[in-house]
Amino acid sequence: MSHNTFGHLFRVTTWGESHGPALGCVVDGCPPGIGLTAEEVQVWLDQRRPGQGKFVTQRQEPDAVKILSGVFQDERTAGQVTTGTPISMMIENVDQRSRDYGEIATQFRPGHADYTYFAKYGVRDYRGGGRASARETAARVAAGAVARKIIEGVTIRAAVVQIGPHAIDRSRFDWDQRHENGFWCPDAQTVPVWEEHLEKVRKSGSSTGAIVEVEALGVPAGWGAPIYGKLDAELAAALMSINASKGVEIGAGFASAAFSGEENADEMRMGNDGEPLFLSNSAGGILGGISSGAPVAARVAFKPTSSILTPRRSLNEAGEEVELRTKGRHDPCVGIRAVPVVEAMTACVLADAYLRHRAQTGGGAYVPGGSDRR
Amino acid sequence: MSHNTFGHLFRVTTWGESHGPALGCVVDGCPPGIGLTAEEVQVWLDQRRPGQGKFVTQRQEPDAVKILSGVFQDERTAGQVTTGTPISMMIENVDQRSRDYGEIATQFRPGHADYTYFAKYGVRDYRGGGRASARETAARVAAGAVARKIIEGVTIRAAVVQIGPHAIDRSRFDWDQRHENGFWCPDAQTVPVWEEHLEKVRKSGSSTGAIVEVEALGVPAGWGAPIYGKLDAELAAALMSINASKGVEIGAGFASAAFSGEENADEMRMGNDGEPLFLSNSAGGILGGISSGAPVAARVAFKPTSSILTPRRSLNEAGEEVELRTKGRHDPCVGIRAVPVVEAMTACVLADAYLRHRAQTGGGAYVPGGSDRR
Amino acid sequence: MSHNTFGHLFRVTTWGESHGPALGCVVDGCPPGIGLTAEEVQVWLDQRRPGQGKFVTQRQEPDAVKILSGVFQDERTAGQVTTGTPISMMIENVDQRSRDYGEIATQFRPGHADYTYFAKYGVRDYRGGGRASARETAARVAAGAVARKIIEGVTIRAAVVQIGPHAIDRSRFDWDQRHENGFWCPDAQTVPVWEEHLEKVRKSGSSTGAIVEVEALGVPAGWGAPIYGKLDAELAAALMSINASKGVEIGAGFASAAFSGEENADEMRMGNDGEPLFLSNSAGGILGGISSGAPVAARVAFKPTSSILTPRRSLNEAGEEVELRTKGRHDPCVGIRAVPVVEAMTACVLADAYLRHRAQTGGGAYVPGGSDRR
Amino acid sequence: MSHNTFGHLFRVTTWGESHGPALGCVVDGCPPGIGLTAEEVQVWLDQRRPGQGKFVTQRQEPDAVKILSGVFQDERTAGQVTTGTPISMMIENVDQRSRDYGEIATQFRPGHADYTYFAKYGVRDYRGGGRASARETAARVAAGAVARKIIEGVTIRAAVVQIGPHAIDRSRFDWDQRHENGFWCPDAQTVPVWEEHLEKVRKSGSSTGAIVEVEALGVPAGWGAPIYGKLDAELAAALMSINASKGVEIGAGFASAAFSGEENADEMRMGNDGEPLFLSNSAGGILGGISSGAPVAARVAFKPTSSILTPRRSLNEAGEEVELRTKGRHDPCVGIRAVPVVEAMTACVLADAYLRHRAQTGGGAYVPGGSDRR
Repeated sequence: MSHNTFGHLFRVTTWGESHGPALGCVVDGCPPGIGLTAEEVQVWLDQRRPGQGKFVTQRQEPDAVKILSGVFQDERTAGQVTTGTPISMMIENVDQRSRDYGEIATQFRPGHADYTYFAKYGVRDYRGGGRASARETAARVAAGAVARKIIEGVTIRAAVVQIGPHAIDRSRFDWDQRHENGFWCPDAQTVPVWEEHLEKVRKSGSSTGAIVEVEALGVPAGWGAPIYGKLDAELAAALMSINASKGVEIGAGFASAAFSGEENADEMRMGNDGEPLFLSNSAGGILGGISSGAPVAARVAFKPTSSILTPRRSLNEAGEEVELRTKGRHDPCVGIRAVPVVEAMTACVLADAYLRHRAQTGGGAYVPGGSDRR
Repeated sequence: MSHNTFGHLFRVTTWGESHGPALGCVVDGCPPGIGLTAEEVQVWLDQRRPGQGKFVTQRQEPDAVKILSGVFQDERTAGQVTTGTPISMMIENVDQRSRDYGEIATQFRPGHADYTYFAKYGVRDYRGGGRASARETAARVAAGAVARKIIEGVTIRAAVVQIGPHAIDRSRFDWDQRHENGFWCPDAQTVPVWEEHLEKVRKSGSSTGAIVEVEALGVPAGWGAPIYGKLDAELAAALMSINASKGVEIGAGFASAAFSGEENADEMRMGNDGEPLFLSNSAGGILGGISSGAPVAARVAFKPTSSILTPRRSLNEAGEEVELRTKGRHDPCVGIRAVPVVEAMTACVLADAYLRHRAQTGGGAYVPGGSDRR
Repeated sequence: MSHNTFGHLFRVTTWGESHGPALGCVVDGCPPGIGLTAEEVQVWLDQRRPGQGKFVTQRQEPDAVKILSGVFQDERTAGQVTTGTPISMMIENVDQRSRDYGEIATQFRPGHADYTYFAKYGVRDYRGGGRASARETAARVAAGAVARKIIEGVTIRAAVVQIGPHAIDRSRFDWDQRHENGFWCPDAQTVPVWEEHLEKVRKSGSSTGAIVEVEALGVPAGWGAPIYGKLDAELAAALMSINASKGVEIGAGFASAAFSGEENADEMRMGNDGEPLFLSNSAGGILGGISSGAPVAARVAFKPTSSILTPRRSLNEAGEEVELRTKGRHDPCVGIRAVPVVEAMTACVLADAYLRHRAQTGGGAYVPGGSDRR
Repeated sequence: MSHNTFGHLFRVTTWGESHGPALGCVVDGCPPGIGLTAEEVQVWLDQRRPGQGKFVTQRQEPDAVKILSGVFQDERTAGQVTTGTPISMMIENVDQRSRDYGEIATQFRPGHADYTYFAKYGVRDYRGGGRASARETAARVAAGAVARKIIEGVTIRAAVVQIGPHAIDRSRFDWDQRHENGFWCPDAQTVPVWEEHLEKVRKSGSSTGAIVEVEALGVPAGWGAPIYGKLDAELAAALMSINASKGVEIGAGFASAAFSGEENADEMRMGNDGEPLFLSNSAGGILGGISSGAPVAARVAFKPTSSILTPRRSLNEAGEEVELRTKGRHDPCVGIRAVPVVEAMTACVLADAYLRHRAQTGGGAYVPGGSDRR
């Protein structure tokens, strides 16, 4: 994780501002020979795309991705594949609405990065938040689409489990449900509660936070690199780097602080398939920074959208005290659209961990009672 | 964060196993001319040292640090200073008790990294947890002592704010109190509650989790490097990489999911000193990944110590199902001894952020209404 | 230097294949507030552009660069400046001539990377050499244009000092001359010799090698980071990474092997300006990996263009033995067009060294007899 | 290559000054399960050890290495193996002769790093050159010993091919000869010439340069990572980072500048073993930054030892002009003792390239006419 690049071997560099001509990413270190088309990447981008409901921003962006390098359509092969060289992907900005930015150009919106970019750089692209805009996450989703192809045995899925003060009922958790509503909600009965809450928030010109949960199924034991490249540490950085993220927990997370040792220890038995089986998953599939074979599970807290209509006290670049309210096209709950981004970042971290594991050990894992690595 | 090295410019590489001859770190990238003696490092190590009370492990280790390189005592100068070359520090293991490890050598202790190290590497130093032992954190504390000298205007302090289900009363939060008890507890009235809880846990051969809170005062606006080297992302990785850590949150953290936009937005006014003032600190001193000048604040959740006397079901390397209880000298609550480690990791992240900020911008920050960077 | 990214703080990631839709780079870590327009970058690209004489490839590419991010035209400021966020630059391929590649698609051209890309990746974009094409160096030149702006007190200039067996006469070395001929030749009397040599080479369908010399004036003492980030080591890697480069030397280089210690030691005196003065420059401006204040000087050897008309024995992907001659639009001497690339890589290495030096020390240097850093 | 760390996956961090208590390295990223003992490392250190003849420094250092971490002697296995955790190795300084450094403490020895360390850091450990001493290379040799174990199918061997103006006769090149004399000379008839030259140099208090050649046999096709992590670029950086190195060339190197395209192109045929065969090796086993299967071959130029008895003009820290001659225990030709260091750095670069190749592709290479990777 270094400025605008993340990953060690599966390396993603992103660029672009909200209202510039385009944004994109360069994905380096991808294994060769993997089928990859723009259409496959587009599928994931479409999930993140704004303008898909009344609770998300009304900015209309097709978010059409172009692959500019790193793939090759060889007439002798079945289709277009990665070549092992950097994959450059670009998304042109279409609906960036040139306009007079007026006070936005000189005022610091509370909760936004306006003031800190000013303090650090002395100059900032104030149009739509510039580099700090959530539009940047489109590039992450594009990179995540490539990552998924590298670890295709792994299933990554995320859902919103809390909006504002309203958490789902975990006893009703059903992954299939998340596609049945506009909130990625895995609990059908919570959907109307959130609808009502968001309607109220929207009408009052306010906003609300959310918690997103992600899990990765099929991650074999052995991925992750202690001590400072622990899988959970890498996940924490990746998920905390998403706009508006304020917290990350793995497995039981903060709840484990209240646990006893007995509650916390995930007991093991041998499964029928000869693979070790964990009888619980407080650890979230990671022990000592290395995956255990249990599902990798994390949760991310998102703060409310900072752009609200209610006037807030702030400063401008001249150091004068101002009151400002943020007009414009804003999601009342950024956490909802963060779901595909959380998935993408998880995919990127896992693909990177897989490649690093293969580098150091050749890949695979030792199985208790087994004669050799597999 | 890469295997056993972390940091971009202030780079720390650590090494060593629990029961090997020694452990240590190499700190690279330190600015020259900074006064540094082994005694100054020892002060911080002594805070982490085990054997200081009945609720911490009884292993007796002096944890005496030696500085092997990177400093020079020039007779012409007042004292020993850093030279800009790598600072190698070593702590010899003294009380590693050679003994028959018996079943530990082949069994996987639930909650420990035994199984995942086996699965990944096929071989593991099972003595005292090997590399995955909390002894490794001594090297972090030594590195943190150097980091503090680089950013000496910054005050970093941590406290335990919850043990098991017992949280402190934040209205009684008093940083001075944390030195008055063996728990780093900032709330005097909670101390007896924790004593009772821990006594019960210890007697029953169980263990308990904890939450540690850290804040850094005096961090100027401008540190941190978006997008993937955000200050909060770096902190999240650093704190999640500590043994037994299961969650990290910045500022209001997970609570902000339930906030409204109005509650969450930290309003700004101009302070009497001409510095912007935040009227609240939900953001934990970080906006868009860059420090805002408000205190940097984070919390870390620690799971209960995995070594407990209660028998738990598990496997051994032969794939056989076993029941095992972990005897030995163990803290019932690893979160307590994590306090100096949380401080050290925070110091390292901030020192690194400071150097990176100085690299890209020359240092300092633009102040609203000011004529230039300062 | 990592796959397709180089630099530590001034980081350049490049992408693109010879016959893909475009190529480009992302420059990260650039300080903010530096004036930068596409026109300024174009100046350098135009120097590298093919199609400028009969001894360079006849492929016609405008090499028009677009800046897609990282700059901002603030109406309140004089002009467009860098913002500290990643600068994405793109050059569209125009004259990539879609055609039937025939045997090229399956044969390995001797001296080219055809076989090694096949062996490594199993798939390769064979059109025009794909990623291994010298077109990739356009992205380096664009990045170098940004680097130059960061270290604007430094003058970087390169010249061709040998083509084939014909070296210049160093007693006639005149930097101004290099702009007076198509060979970047600093010795007017050598120009007709090279013209004759190249004409012969071209007519015979052969090619020839060259040596390029670069120097950087105005690099202050103190840049470079021992031990493995030595300024000469970084330069060596950067210059060796250029297509067709087979050797790099610093200062006296290989000749110093034959020197005596007396000949080699650059003696010092104090200059009239209070700056240390070196009476010779065998060291090429670098001692112990750190710049000394003397001109940084290096030379790079380029092998002959591998694409020649003379039939050579080789293999194809089926493992069959073939004879092949490379038709197409090729420079007989790639070393000539490498001049702007050598300059650009030197600029990038120096800009990176400057930022790293500023990070660790605050910038500047201690001057003998001076009271403090300046 | 970053300050005191090099390598991407096989990462070596070194530390220590010439006259400090010890020096050492931490080797991270080593695969697990590789047999490794201190004795095996010592073999290589003994080759580099000073005090082995009249043409090398008379400082007596046993250079006894201790392995402090990263290996484990499991009673159930045959011997001590790597565990995948960082391998810390330490060499204590024994013969560092505490003494009054007098003028050395304030004067800048020409050709040494004295002045540049002063200019950069303002403080320097002047005892024996401090960090810039060639003693640092012992740590590289220790790391190289580990690297060799990772790529045990590869044979790495180096020889001195020129001392002062006296080059060997390549027609008499015999690798076995290099162990028959104190100069690593592969040409028996050149030995007396060098003896005479060095005797003259030694008596006159002067010094002389040298050229070292290294080759690696058995490197399969496919190692190396274009564009900026090219195998030749990595080798160039690694070899240029060795003390006193002033030039690096690959294959035909600088000579290739004078070649015609026909001379330079290494033709290919299919070998009897079904492996591609190169009929010459101008490329030095690397095409497009990727190994071709031919021997990897490089040469390194070393300048004469800077410490000479002849008085040279220089400055001191006060800015005064001085004359100084360097007394002490110095090799008249540092190039000789560099041979094991050149081998070690080559081994480290190759081990790293191997792991990176395995990461991205799974390892192995595609063979023309073969049905699949092997």
